[in-house]
Amino acid sequence: MTIALSQAAPASLITPAALLDEPRLMHNLRRMQQRMDTLGVALRPHVKTAKCIEVAQRQRALGARGITVSTLKEAETFFDAGFDDILYAVGIAPGKLDAVRALRQRGCRLTVLVDSVAAAEAVVQAVVRAERQAERQADAALEVLIEIDTDDHRAGVKPDAGVLLDIGRTLHRGGAVLRGVMTHAGASYECYTSEALAAMAEQERAGCVQAAGRLRAAGLPCPVVSVGSTPTALSARRLDGVTEVRAGVYVFHDLVMVNVGVAGLEELALSVLASVIGHRPDKGWVLVDAGWMAMSRDRGTQTQPVDYGYGAVCDEAGQPIDGLVMSSANQEHGVLSWRDGRIDPALMERFALGTRLRILPNHACATAAQFGHYAVLTADGTLAQWERMNGW
Amino acid sequence: MTIALSQAAPASLITPAALLDEPRLMHNLRRMQQRMDTLGVALRPHVKTAKCIEVAQRQRALGARGITVSTLKEAETFFDAGFDDILYAVGIAPGKLDAVRALRQRGCRLTVLVDSVAAAEAVVQAVVRAERQAERQADAALEVLIEIDTDDHRAGVKPDAGVLLDIGRTLHRGGAVLRGVMTHAGASYECYTSEALAAMAEQERAGCVQAAGRLRAAGLPCPVVSVGSTPTALSARRLDGVTEVRAGVYVFHDLVMVNVGVAGLEELALSVLASVIGHRPDKGWVLVDAGWMAMSRDRGTQTQPVDYGYGAVCDEAGQPIDGLVMSSANQEHGVLSWRDGRIDPALMERFALGTRLRILPNHACATAAQFGHYAVLTADGTLAQWERMNGW
Repeated sequence: MTIALSQAAPASLITPAALLDEPRLMHNLRRMQQRMDTLGVALRPHVKTAKCIEVAQRQRALGARGITVSTLKEAETFFDAGFDDILYAVGIAPGKLDAVRALRQRGCRLTVLVDSVAAAEAVVQAVVRAERQAERQADAALEVLIEIDTDDHRAGVKPDAGVLLDIGRTLHRGGAVLRGVMTHAGASYECYTSEALAAMAEQERAGCVQAAGRLRAAGLPCPVVSVGSTPTALSARRLDGVTEVRAGVYVFHDLVMVNVGVAGLEELALSVLASVIGHRPDKGWVLVDAGWMAMSRDRGTQTQPVDYGYGAVCDEAGQPIDGLVMSSANQEHGVLSWRDGRIDPALMERFALGTRLRILPNHACATAAQFGHYAVLTADGTLAQWERMNGW
Repeated sequence: MTIALSQAAPASLITPAALLDEPRLMHNLRRMQQRMDTLGVALRPHVKTAKCIEVAQRQRALGARGITVSTLKEAETFFDAGFDDILYAVGIAPGKLDAVRALRQRGCRLTVLVDSVAAAEAVVQAVVRAERQAERQADAALEVLIEIDTDDHRAGVKPDAGVLLDIGRTLHRGGAVLRGVMTHAGASYECYTSEALAAMAEQERAGCVQAAGRLRAAGLPCPVVSVGSTPTALSARRLDGVTEVRAGVYVFHDLVMVNVGVAGLEELALSVLASVIGHRPDKGWVLVDAGWMAMSRDRGTQTQPVDYGYGAVCDEAGQPIDGLVMSSANQEHGVLSWRDGRIDPALMERFALGTRLRILPNHACATAAQFGHYAVLTADGTLAQWERMNGW
């Protein structure tokens, strides 16, 4: 698989702009789908990175089945655009269950997530409330996954916890549709070797499969075993017992993924186009008109092997300039300097006032969220504009 | 001046939501305007924090003259809403001068900023290009301030630098309208005593006044002497020679300003309403549905005397819960725990599933930018929605 050379950024773009390189995007989408096809599992991409209909349509065309969302607004937006199989992968707040049911009644197969008996009871109460109102019992149904904690990282119940069966029984006996289990090994972001990544992927798989087995052994339904994160999805050596994988940031990749080791710089599809607005020769600084408002405040590489500050600097055509980073940022000012701290007066001439540069982000989910649309450099060399949704 | 008790958040709000307490906002606006009136200078508020027409209208009604913006899109949006005296306070990129001129031709008195001879020459070239096209020479004019560096912090020329006069002459002789000088003492954010703040305010004032004096002594016009930041504006003891003060974050204040010492927790007008979605009793964690996407990734208090993590937790009515913070965050998950690290199982019962809480932000400019509108708790107890603009 080869990646087309990046296109030049059209002069008409106002800086800062979120540049999306479509050939690189397509490379990333194909790479992940092919891996999942080879491993024999379905891919349910997480749309929280791009929040963009055009990206999700391309994932679906390549074989993705269903989508994962991080907010109800994403669910509503993507349902309106023709995506009707949606997992809302954040533990459900009881106050949101009426909105979930409203979306389901419109025909959206929206599945929610719980990790406690209290949340399961809230779901059951919502089903009971709905049954009193619904003409057909099917209209009152709520489909649910139980969140499993396989890496001691965030939410979820441990695969061997007694409460897992309590949650399953509460849902099943209470009239909710228990669809299965899901886990997300967020700790994979702190793995830096292929061995550690493969081990984390296996830990994620094994824990989720174990939880599914316990539910089934207790006579409870569990058709879905859903795992995933970009690092584990790209590192898993086998996925026996898993039915679907979720991954998000792989669509764009970013410097955090480069540090983790699952992407190369040449695979990063998102960058921020910026213009030089000034110089501080005494400090070795080049100032650009992209600050933290454009890059986000995400400093995800700060604790990684290579700290890129607020981003890695490329020339206007997208060629990385080794060692040049955005070392600090104010709201609309970015300070570019050499990562090793040397003061280099030659930078001032090399990057004269008005020069345009691209900045690769630490964390694509956070940087993309600062923009209302992408300026897309398409494969045929034309410029397109793809909207993204934000907010709740 | 008393601050009204904060209103309860309406149950209809979907979490996370950006809650804006209007009585607190009005208190903050009055406090700043009264200070500027007492010091005998005009207030030109920076709209980059709220990016909200309703907020700027209230500032103007209290006496503010003109506005400051951080992007051209802000200039366009606020001009369309009736604000026609605008300072674009980021060094101008040459590629943006045509857009500046287009806005001026529509009647907007938009002033731009330069801090180098190269930028001054770009402005002059734009004026010359315009004169060839314009029917009246006045239509080609560009008004310019020179940025002065009074705190060795970011952009600008030193008050005593020879290049200051070169820039002034380039502009004045080239046909641009040299309106004066401006500075921003961003280093005031790192001051923590009233003495240090007052000294920084005096340094900011004295440096900018010195630069103005040098331009005038060289026979160049300099009617405007513009200084400001929220900490220095609230700490200056005199502003002799200054014509206007710019400040932004004072409209909402935030935890960074509390640490700096220019605001109290009870003056923070912006918070994020969140719902409890889970618990980790083994870790002492309460999970909420506001993560870094809602709070932003800003960790501005990390290097300050009190580190609030991703925010300070209040009850639903806005009463701070001393010591409880958002200690970590994922995209749509926030982890609440005691700041001292103790594991407290009682938190789980105190904040049951579905409980709503408010989180005070580190940095209001960054947190507000994550939202498309504010849910406004008005003085009369009703809920209003005020839009904000984002993007470029």
